[in-house]
Amino acid sequence: MELTATDVWVMVSAALVLLMTPGLAFFYGGMARAKAALNMMMMSFVSIGLVGVVWVLWGFGMTSAPEILGGLVGDPTADLGLSEHVGTGDLIGIGYAATFAIITVALISGAVADRTRFSAWVAFVPVWVTLVYCPLAYMVWGGGLLSADGAIGRRFGEAIDFAGGTVVHINAGVAALVLVYVLGRRAGWARGFHRPHNVPLVMIGAALLWFGWFGFNGGAAGSTGEAALIWVNTLVAPAAAMLGWLLVERVRDGRPTSLGAASGVVAGLVAITPACASLSPLGSLALGAVAGAGAALAVGLKYRFGYDDALDVVGVHLVAGLIGTVGIGFLAMPVDGVGGGLFYGGGIEQLTAQVVATVFTVAFTGVMTLLIALAIARTVGFRVSAEDEERGVDLSEHSELAYEFGPLGGLSADGDRAVSKDEVGV
Amino acid sequence: MELTATDVWVMVSAALVLLMTPGLAFFYGGMARAKAALNMMMMSFVSIGLVGVVWVLWGFGMTSAPEILGGLVGDPTADLGLSEHVGTGDLIGIGYAATFAIITVALISGAVADRTRFSAWVAFVPVWVTLVYCPLAYMVWGGGLLSADGAIGRRFGEAIDFAGGTVVHINAGVAALVLVYVLGRRAGWARGFHRPHNVPLVMIGAALLWFGWFGFNGGAAGSTGEAALIWVNTLVAPAAAMLGWLLVERVRDGRPTSLGAASGVVAGLVAITPACASLSPLGSLALGAVAGAGAALAVGLKYRFGYDDALDVVGVHLVAGLIGTVGIGFLAMPVDGVGGGLFYGGGIEQLTAQVVATVFTVAFTGVMTLLIALAIARTVGFRVSAEDEERGVDLSEHSELAYEFGPLGGLSADGDRAVSKDEVGV
Amino acid sequence: MELTATDVWVMVSAALVLLMTPGLAFFYGGMARAKAALNMMMMSFVSIGLVGVVWVLWGFGMTSAPEILGGLVGDPTADLGLSEHVGTGDLIGIGYAATFAIITVALISGAVADRTRFSAWVAFVPVWVTLVYCPLAYMVWGGGLLSADGAIGRRFGEAIDFAGGTVVHINAGVAALVLVYVLGRRAGWARGFHRPHNVPLVMIGAALLWFGWFGFNGGAAGSTGEAALIWVNTLVAPAAAMLGWLLVERVRDGRPTSLGAASGVVAGLVAITPACASLSPLGSLALGAVAGAGAALAVGLKYRFGYDDALDVVGVHLVAGLIGTVGIGFLAMPVDGVGGGLFYGGGIEQLTAQVVATVFTVAFTGVMTLLIALAIARTVGFRVSAEDEERGVDLSEHSELAYEFGPLGGLSADGDRAVSKDEVGV
Repeated sequence: MELTATDVWVMVSAALVLLMTPGLAFFYGGMARAKAALNMMMMSFVSIGLVGVVWVLWGFGMTSAPEILGGLVGDPTADLGLSEHVGTGDLIGIGYAATFAIITVALISGAVADRTRFSAWVAFVPVWVTLVYCPLAYMVWGGGLLSADGAIGRRFGEAIDFAGGTVVHINAGVAALVLVYVLGRRAGWARGFHRPHNVPLVMIGAALLWFGWFGFNGGAAGSTGEAALIWVNTLVAPAAAMLGWLLVERVRDGRPTSLGAASGVVAGLVAITPACASLSPLGSLALGAVAGAGAALAVGLKYRFGYDDALDVVGVHLVAGLIGTVGIGFLAMPVDGVGGGLFYGGGIEQLTAQVVATVFTVAFTGVMTLLIALAIARTVGFRVSAEDEERGVDLSEHSELAYEFGPLGGLSADGDRAVSKDEVGV
Repeated sequence: MELTATDVWVMVSAALVLLMTPGLAFFYGGMARAKAALNMMMMSFVSIGLVGVVWVLWGFGMTSAPEILGGLVGDPTADLGLSEHVGTGDLIGIGYAATFAIITVALISGAVADRTRFSAWVAFVPVWVTLVYCPLAYMVWGGGLLSADGAIGRRFGEAIDFAGGTVVHINAGVAALVLVYVLGRRAGWARGFHRPHNVPLVMIGAALLWFGWFGFNGGAAGSTGEAALIWVNTLVAPAAAMLGWLLVERVRDGRPTSLGAASGVVAGLVAITPACASLSPLGSLALGAVAGAGAALAVGLKYRFGYDDALDVVGVHLVAGLIGTVGIGFLAMPVDGVGGGLFYGGGIEQLTAQVVATVFTVAFTGVMTLLIALAIARTVGFRVSAEDEERGVDLSEHSELAYEFGPLGGLSADGDRAVSKDEVGV
Repeated sequence: MELTATDVWVMVSAALVLLMTPGLAFFYGGMARAKAALNMMMMSFVSIGLVGVVWVLWGFGMTSAPEILGGLVGDPTADLGLSEHVGTGDLIGIGYAATFAIITVALISGAVADRTRFSAWVAFVPVWVTLVYCPLAYMVWGGGLLSADGAIGRRFGEAIDFAGGTVVHINAGVAALVLVYVLGRRAGWARGFHRPHNVPLVMIGAALLWFGWFGFNGGAAGSTGEAALIWVNTLVAPAAAMLGWLLVERVRDGRPTSLGAASGVVAGLVAITPACASLSPLGSLALGAVAGAGAALAVGLKYRFGYDDALDVVGVHLVAGLIGTVGIGFLAMPVDGVGGGLFYGGGIEQLTAQVVATVFTVAFTGVMTLLIALAIARTVGFRVSAEDEERGVDLSEHSELAYEFGPLGGLSADGDRAVSKDEVGV
């Protein structure tokens, strides 16, 4: 059968979403300290490796019918190896879905920068994807508990989550908060402790994230009109969010920063993710501006409450994910004149459904991630030693340094022997 | 309605064009000095934020019917919020058009590196897009003055400008020249004053620009044959331009440089932009070679005439834009055996139309930009103080530094305290 | 004629493949030393320029009918300038094919880092593409010797090489080995001699390569089912290969590295290239794991045998290319119940065809490249002087340095004069 336009769109979208995970690696890696940048990037890269394998073996099966455990999750043994889909177009959607699982777990990693044992992360990724991501994806998108036919969806209405406000961003944000709690703060942590080591790398990451997000939000569009709306909303919500974040910085700190611009873009993208097919362009501008300003304010909370969310996964993904998911209850346009958010006179129904799905996600992910994290902390060990943290996890976990600029370029008088062979363990 | 192949192509193209603006940020950011790299990148990033919002509110309306002011511009109040397009495929083209406005204003920023107040740029972008870009886009592409039905187009023939020789590159290049005139030279400026601080970042930018340019040139293709020709021309014109630039360097300076390769690619892309649907592959090779060599020679003009066009926006975008726009008058293939450029025996008509559109664009943009720039210079103030320029605009405008490599990696003995907290204003 | 979905897919794929060559420039450039990074990137960039021009003039003609020299190659004079294709969709496939030629020659460059005269490379590229790449592409894909109708294909069966196991990776890997032999080792070369100067740049390159590879493998898919299978295999084979490489490092060296993750991804992509349309997802996992682990072991061979393959083109592209091409003989699924690899009970036929094509490619490329390389070595001269090698080829060949971080950022006390104007030849 010849390729259809939708085939092409989903394949391109899937490639775009896959690119987002390296994009995230650069976004996070640039924000990390120079001595921990590679470890940061590796947490994203190895997520592609691990989840890619899991997806073929049992992951995809767990996100689709037939279900087990009363609507909690699909049957992991039903689709081992994906062999029955060979020769069909099913594999396009299966590949697309894999890229969502990959980036969701990678998103978590930014919270635990500078102090995570790589082996612990390698254990965490497949377990968390299996026990947290796959069930939640099934419950929201696969026909499970939270969907229109599920027990919760029937009781409280089906929440709108087009591309992953609950499944991706609230999920990752809550998991990040739990990991931060389990791992504890970095030595010496305080306001002003951290400056990004390579802001251009952060900007490269933000650019690839935005580019890829057109596939993330748009890949499942069911019609030209829906795809067109999603495209524009994925442009304008982050545009407004960038301005919202910069405005908060200008008022609060006196100066808008490039780190703020990049973070604002991501906050806007997160907020529009569940809402991209339901808001008008004006609604997207409003949601984006609120998400950008809100996340800019929220990233300061960690200093008040004392949790060391190193690269602001909670402040950006959890907070903007909440704003987007709940905001749908206010800003959703009616469909064929029916329903819609509070601001369109659609009543409290949609808002209720959004809040219920949000609360469920927070509780489910919180409990499950805590159990997984504690299990890994007490077996593999989640945190490096204080000496290794001081020395840098790039050396301790990977025997590598991110940069070796050498004697030329005015960078160092003795670059070639700045780190002895013994030290890097070559 | 199900997605069509054209829907998919335009959505992908629009995402590609959006990626070009971060690409430009890296291209320019890598060429800037280390102490001004973030400010440089921010001028591009914030253009996305500002123009994204403007486009939804009044920008798109100004580029389409109904017109006001006798064909000068579309009615800004006719399409506020784009609400009437929700649910239709119109939003695809509207989003695509937004990305052109974004990158055009961002292109200008390279000329004023190292010395621009960020608040002035934030004021300049929406005003310039509203008063210069939107009218010109309407006049050339929207049915206005310069189009086949407009007063100038009827009198002198309609110029061919497929993807933005006049609207994008000559426009941005002239505006850059005007800003350079208004802002003045950097302290100490002279030949050899400037070396790019991060050439790999420049190359990353050039790569993303080239990649995105396939969407920029191709997104509006009306048929398979046209799209195919545009694709090949967008490959081979910059290929030849790269060689043209490197050859000039080899002959003039003894050594071809990587900065020259990247700049040559951009010059070739600029030149082929208006011409991509009208030239044969051989014609594109010729145009590219001339544009690459021509721009390589033109970037030296600033030293002769004493204007500090920091990153060669005039030398590359204005000069190659002129070569491409006027070159159509010589190299355009006939359409169905009719017309074509001088070299195809098509007479002087096409060349006349090209020259008229060029002259009009130079005059319109020059005057309008001068008025806007002077207004901002006398109110907000366009230029930082001499102390801030010396200290670096990244610190003065954003309280940030691009890099913090720290004590590891042989980069610095005391990276962590290289800049005191007070200095960066944290 | 309106765009079809296949038109769009091939145009997008072609843009993706073009992006791979800059991706390769960053992958290699980050691995090179700081004083040779620009030269390394330039070898990739200039390949786009040179091959882009060659392709329009005679390159494409040499890869398609009519043939000359008894099935060795297409007639270079048959399609000069591509003029007869203007207005048709042919140019889409012609542009797509150009991007394969471009990256194949660029792949070779990693082997000769730090010591190659740029002028020699500029001579090598068009000659090698003309005399080695084009004939091989014609023989395998264009209807020549190795195809089903060719003398070898008829005798030994047609090898499966969907996207370039022989034509691209074995070809480039053998050529790299020959160049290393002709150029000789770098001064001081030994195990541990080399550390990558910018690992994040390597990761950026790997990310762009992976992203682009979806176009590389998928662009020629003939149906939805085939495209879908290729997409998934292009995700999961490198995922498994990354894990395979990291596992070897963990066991052998104690630590998995980020350079290993990036290299493993590339090894997996290389191996799946010829096999992407023939293996099940499980088969792709197996092939990827073997390729990743195999290449991780193979990159050590250069120390045993004493060839200075600077960036492991032989260890990654030749070895993984062999594993993928020969692996098809074991792992290929039967088509409509017929044939298939040994593991599917398909007999020895497919394996024989794969081995014959491999042996032919190794011999053809080896001999031809040796003749070309010796000719250039004895005329232009392939290697820089010992002084220039010590000083760095960026300065000697391009009068440039990759970085100029300057006095801010804790990078250098006197960045602005770290290299004197005289030294860089400005």
